[in-house]
Amino acid sequence: MAQINTATSAWTGTLKDGSGKLSLPKADTTFNYDFGSRFETGNTTNPEELIAGALTACFSMYLTALFSNEGLTGTHVTSTAEVTLDNEQSPPKITTIELSVEATAGTLTNERFHELLEKTENECPIKNLLQGATISVKSSKLISA
Amino acid sequence: MAQINTATSAWTGTLKDGSGKLSLPKADTTFNYDFGSRFETGNTTNPEELIAGALTACFSMYLTALFSNEGLTGTHVTSTAEVTLDNEQSPPKITTIELSVEATAGTLTNERFHELLEKTENECPIKNLLQGATISVKSSKLISA
Repeated sequence: MAQINTATSAWTGTLKDGSGKLSLPKADTTFNYDFGSRFETGNTTNPEELIAGALTACFSMYLTALFSNEGLTGTHVTSTAEVTLDNEQSPPKITTIELSVEATAGTLTNERFHELLEKTENECPIKNLLQGATISVKSSKLISA
Repeated sequence: MAQINTATSAWTGTLKDGSGKLSLPKADTTFNYDFGSRFETGNTTNPEELIAGALTACFSMYLTALFSNEGLTGTHVTSTAEVTLDNEQSPPKITTIELSVEATAGTLTNERFHELLEKTENECPIKNLLQGATISVKSSKLISA
């Protein structure tokens, strides 16, 4: 079945002096964002943070699905993504995304963990969507239960 | 300058019975998400909603930047994205993203509006990141000020 998700963002005013509102209906949340939060030192969210969120959410869920397929229960997966936006290029470009992954997965061997991690890298739907950047797993760790 | 944004998502338990926590540090927000919210009828957020949020946030901001370059002030841009995840494919695939864009932009002509819209489609960093899906502007409207 096809699942459709929708979001809306509205910007009022100029690039530098205006601001945006980013609405996620299922999350029941609206975020403010602006030029400073994306290109300077602001501390509200921005599109790149949401990309990091989407990729890690999918990655942790997909690796869990593969663990569940192995019959494992009580597993735990944490993924972190660092998204780099190069603002010296014109237009600005998201160049690299680096993932760090930690998992607790009962009796899983380290070898099988790395096979499933590679399968996740190949199959995770959000990873496959983000083809404009180089995405790599820079660190991974299997924690013994 | 390169801007780095980070997010973390943790999943506890199996795919069907477990659940995830998606943390956006700059947004100072943690969302719960689970299998139902992504593949069934749940109403919490999910990775695809965040993709729609990231793309619309960037698209509205980029089109605004082009308006500002034209010397326009007091502009308003609203973008909505519909992200389709096809769960009948294995692995599931994000196939299409459809954008709707409305703008109020003072004295801008309709012809110039469509030129700037096309430039946004070509240059928006998030659009350029999401190369794994077909992204199209299905509707656009310039509202007279």
